[in-house]
Amino acid sequence: MKIAVDAMGGDYAPTEIVKGAIEAAQEAKTEIVLVGNKIVVQPLLQEYSPANSQLSLVDAPEVISPEEHPTKAVRTKRYSSIMVGINMLRPGEASAFVSAGSTGAIVTASALLLGKIKGVERPAITILLPTPTSFSLLLDVGANVDCKPAFLVNFAQLGKIYMEKVFNIKNPRVGLLTTGEEKMKGNRLCRESHKLLKDSNLNFVGNIEGKDIARGLVDVIVTDGFTGNMVLKVIEGLGETIFDFFEQILTSDTRFQETAPLFKPVLGAFAKKLDYSEQGGAPLLGVNGNVIIAHGRSRSKAIKNAIYLAHRAAQLKVAEAMVNGFAEQVNTSFPSRNKLSLKPNRLLITERPE
Amino acid sequence: MKIAVDAMGGDYAPTEIVKGAIEAAQEAKTEIVLVGNKIVVQPLLQEYSPANSQLSLVDAPEVISPEEHPTKAVRTKRYSSIMVGINMLRPGEASAFVSAGSTGAIVTASALLLGKIKGVERPAITILLPTPTSFSLLLDVGANVDCKPAFLVNFAQLGKIYMEKVFNIKNPRVGLLTTGEEKMKGNRLCRESHKLLKDSNLNFVGNIEGKDIARGLVDVIVTDGFTGNMVLKVIEGLGETIFDFFEQILTSDTRFQETAPLFKPVLGAFAKKLDYSEQGGAPLLGVNGNVIIAHGRSRSKAIKNAIYLAHRAAQLKVAEAMVNGFAEQVNTSFPSRNKLSLKPNRLLITERPE
Repeated sequence: MKIAVDAMGGDYAPTEIVKGAIEAAQEAKTEIVLVGNKIVVQPLLQEYSPANSQLSLVDAPEVISPEEHPTKAVRTKRYSSIMVGINMLRPGEASAFVSAGSTGAIVTASALLLGKIKGVERPAITILLPTPTSFSLLLDVGANVDCKPAFLVNFAQLGKIYMEKVFNIKNPRVGLLTTGEEKMKGNRLCRESHKLLKDSNLNFVGNIEGKDIARGLVDVIVTDGFTGNMVLKVIEGLGETIFDFFEQILTSDTRFQETAPLFKPVLGAFAKKLDYSEQGGAPLLGVNGNVIIAHGRSRSKAIKNAIYLAHRAAQLKVAEAMVNGFAEQVNTSFPSRNKLSLKPNRLLITERPE
Repeated sequence: MKIAVDAMGGDYAPTEIVKGAIEAAQEAKTEIVLVGNKIVVQPLLQEYSPANSQLSLVDAPEVISPEEHPTKAVRTKRYSSIMVGINMLRPGEASAFVSAGSTGAIVTASALLLGKIKGVERPAITILLPTPTSFSLLLDVGANVDCKPAFLVNFAQLGKIYMEKVFNIKNPRVGLLTTGEEKMKGNRLCRESHKLLKDSNLNFVGNIEGKDIARGLVDVIVTDGFTGNMVLKVIEGLGETIFDFFEQILTSDTRFQETAPLFKPVLGAFAKKLDYSEQGGAPLLGVNGNVIIAHGRSRSKAIKNAIYLAHRAAQLKVAEAMVNGFAEQVNTSFPSRNKLSLKPNRLLITERPE
């Protein structure tokens, strides 16, 4: 099983990506293909892991930066690490792809090269939120910033199938993220989505308020990509800010002078629980392939964990399971197996530039 | 100086409201008028504070519940505690109004009875977010769930004047809450608002990500009321969830067996810092009167603090300062003083029902 890893994406690329890939290759005993500019990645591989048979390199001389317009970048930079890496999933050359690069470009390139699963209107990025006893799946967290109500129903379907197929949760409970429990609460999108979800055959339990997001009241929480991303970043930021607050309390309050050093490991254990890098990345659901989007600020540990997540997705055949799930859901005889490489695509990469 | 307090609004009304009002009257030495159904409030006053000269009661036999449609409720329940209480601000009978009732009804009733300040398109609810060294003003946190880009510029103006007039911050830095630093990041509303803010005469420093919201990078953070409310509730919920997480870490990890009891007061000090009830309420800016919206889950302490906030707003003449600020901003000779009671209104309460 081969995992393709974008060596050029993220704030700390390529060094931290190469380091994370080396760690994952050693620990997980999985074959990893780094995709990136040979001129810069080759020396790093030589430096950190000179003779590693589990690591190889595929040249992709172009880089898409997060500042570029996704659609334009994807169309003009066919030999970028994102395009080359995702393209490796099509003939089954790789089983999953990991990138900490431009989210917009990854989503656009995935839809273009791999195609959307039949029944999916918009692919969505998902994340598992820790709850006191388990976790909830939140989606979309950034693929679609402007949504129509029908998209949110589609996200709920994606989430339902993912929880059923990957975590064996039967008929998962679905909640709509909004600003109040009553059905008319929230903005126009929420109010209209609420109606559609209620009329669907999903196990829709109603609205979930932001304050209840981490309480584990439902298995799947749906929202538009702007709100989902905002919520995620607020949680992430608050996790970091909490340490400043504790630091301030522990140093300024004389009551805690002697005990302060004892709290350090407690805070450490807490940090580990909130730390996004422990989870590694967010699966992009709804495309014909296993794509994991890692955080732009990923360092080697986060990349290593994202590769683990990709490895697990490939082992569990998540993309195929999603195809099957949608086929069952729409109750058709849509043939779902081995479809990954057969999907027709408008864009075909036939040769590399000189 | 008289503060009118809605005795019927909030999850724990009327008992906790009455208790909070009694505490505030005792500690702050301010005159408080409870507004609510005489039949239920009078016995509570008798029970908890039989002969308090600083507390009086104005009868308002109707109650608006949070489930009711705000506009309809405001138009049909003219003798509700919200309508009667806000109406007391018009002739200067009270200097500020506090309510933990339906946010929608408070906003609608305020706009209707007090009128919007000249230059304000949409009033906004504001909250001070604690930062490591100071605070930032976040608005709107719930008055306008569906916004146009121009509204966000208006919120920025409200925030700027509030910070200048109330906190003496010169030319406050304004940030737009969105999902990335780059100007094209975020949803359509954010991208269009960014352009308008950039072209305005405000001290606009750019986009603020959710993760940086508590870092104090700007003085005023603008967002639509849906996103603002969501962010606020996520922070609130996370504050509560954190305790469950710590509880779990402290009890399940044997390393912390001995330090666990010592950690309790640290958590307590931290809780106090995050506790919304310490702040009490959120001012509604942009209407011709000092209106403070308290949390629906307010208990007596939160109500007491909301009354303090209202008292401070009345002392500082916040509503008048906002009128002056807008008048200066639009550079007209708009007469701003003593305007509170002169504003013409479409709805006039002339007599009480039998």
